[in-house]
Amino acid sequence: MAETGTGDTQGSASILYRGKAKDVFPGEGPDTVVMHFSDRATAGNGAKAGTIEDKGHVNAFVTVAAMTRLETHGIRTHLIRATSSNDLLCRKLTMLPLEVVVRNRATGSLVRRIGVTERRVIDPPLVEWYLKDDSLGDPILTDDHVRLLGIGDDALLSRLRQSALSVNKELIAFFAEAGLELIDFKLEYGFDAAGDLILADEISPDTCRLWDSSTGKRLDKDRFRLDLGSEAEAYQEVLRRAVR
Amino acid sequence: MAETGTGDTQGSASILYRGKAKDVFPGEGPDTVVMHFSDRATAGNGAKAGTIEDKGHVNAFVTVAAMTRLETHGIRTHLIRATSSNDLLCRKLTMLPLEVVVRNRATGSLVRRIGVTERRVIDPPLVEWYLKDDSLGDPILTDDHVRLLGIGDDALLSRLRQSALSVNKELIAFFAEAGLELIDFKLEYGFDAAGDLILADEISPDTCRLWDSSTGKRLDKDRFRLDLGSEAEAYQEVLRRAVR
Repeated sequence: MAETGTGDTQGSASILYRGKAKDVFPGEGPDTVVMHFSDRATAGNGAKAGTIEDKGHVNAFVTVAAMTRLETHGIRTHLIRATSSNDLLCRKLTMLPLEVVVRNRATGSLVRRIGVTERRVIDPPLVEWYLKDDSLGDPILTDDHVRLLGIGDDALLSRLRQSALSVNKELIAFFAEAGLELIDFKLEYGFDAAGDLILADEISPDTCRLWDSSTGKRLDKDRFRLDLGSEAEAYQEVLRRAVR
Repeated sequence: MAETGTGDTQGSASILYRGKAKDVFPGEGPDTVVMHFSDRATAGNGAKAGTIEDKGHVNAFVTVAAMTRLETHGIRTHLIRATSSNDLLCRKLTMLPLEVVVRNRATGSLVRRIGVTERRVIDPPLVEWYLKDDSLGDPILTDDHVRLLGIGDDALLSRLRQSALSVNKELIAFFAEAGLELIDFKLEYGFDAAGDLILADEISPDTCRLWDSSTGKRLDKDRFRLDLGSEAEAYQEVLRRAVR
């Protein structure tokens, strides 16, 4: 299927995982998967749902550009190559049930949850863990919770924190070159068959807050979350600037 | 006022702080306060409110017994002495805006929030920080959040964690002698004028979950929170067993 590259016409018989915005299919052989990026958009843990035109393509190709950049700086990712406008062939991983969030400025749930001032610069950047569990609303976890749930030990958390901060450093530069300030973002990690920790999932306006460096205009999923309008145009703008 | 010991007839003109269940008044001289323990009971951050007969007295005197025990084991507390059945003369402190929670078994918000199995033994015990802010619903904080909010640095968090675990060890023994299993509890700390970290607030069935060691019967504020009935009897039972 990955070889045909006709992601939008794939049957669902062989689907491995249906996410809120992406679907995962078997890839070439047992060690790969195809991630299909759809135009489906959700917010508030699925409370709001719709579509953003051509979002799947934008997210797939911003992910390719960002992950390629990270690879050149020694950060291993699951990306192998794009196989169509909406499909990425990736290494198959055993995923950690964590969302790793890095924040360079306060906005969104951080402001609502603990009352930090909106737009405040966070330096050094903040790294947070959230449990990937829709039924619990993806609760924030302390290091002790991660251990208690058996997800990982101190050594793993230290590696995740280091990796997330390295990714942050490279992505800040990557997006700055596109005239975008990286406000915060979410990463997901997994292990390959050799037990190596690999960056997975996507890097896109769905998972990164990106503000125009000059005007502060939001060019990310917050346009959908906050009903700001012009979502599709914002995604195209990020594609145009970041994928060169 | 503290000398009259007529806590229930104190005017509110001089009140320093009105809490959900306790009121704080000026004490003897500038370095002390009188904590008046009322019978008011709230749950769910004030969503449910009522009274539990004689709760103020029970909580004051369980606090005296527990803090006296902690002092004999080298843990400094704000307690000076009881001045009436519902009033404790205490050192005046600059309070940290944190609730320090220690958990020996999973129940309550931990189970609801991150899906740990109800009643599961937690060993080593879990220490959590919550921001004391009713308007935000007392959100949980990671170590990084505590630093970001300017509440404390790594050294303070390390001292708080160590102190809370020492308190836990002594309180487990204290309540075990009363036939009670200490499931979890909340502490608050402050600094005295010399800058020393001092355990403050109360140690009572309002702030500790206490289960009968043999039957598992809940003898704490969960009877009120969960509408289990016989709240007043449960508090009297704890007083009878723990204050000897």
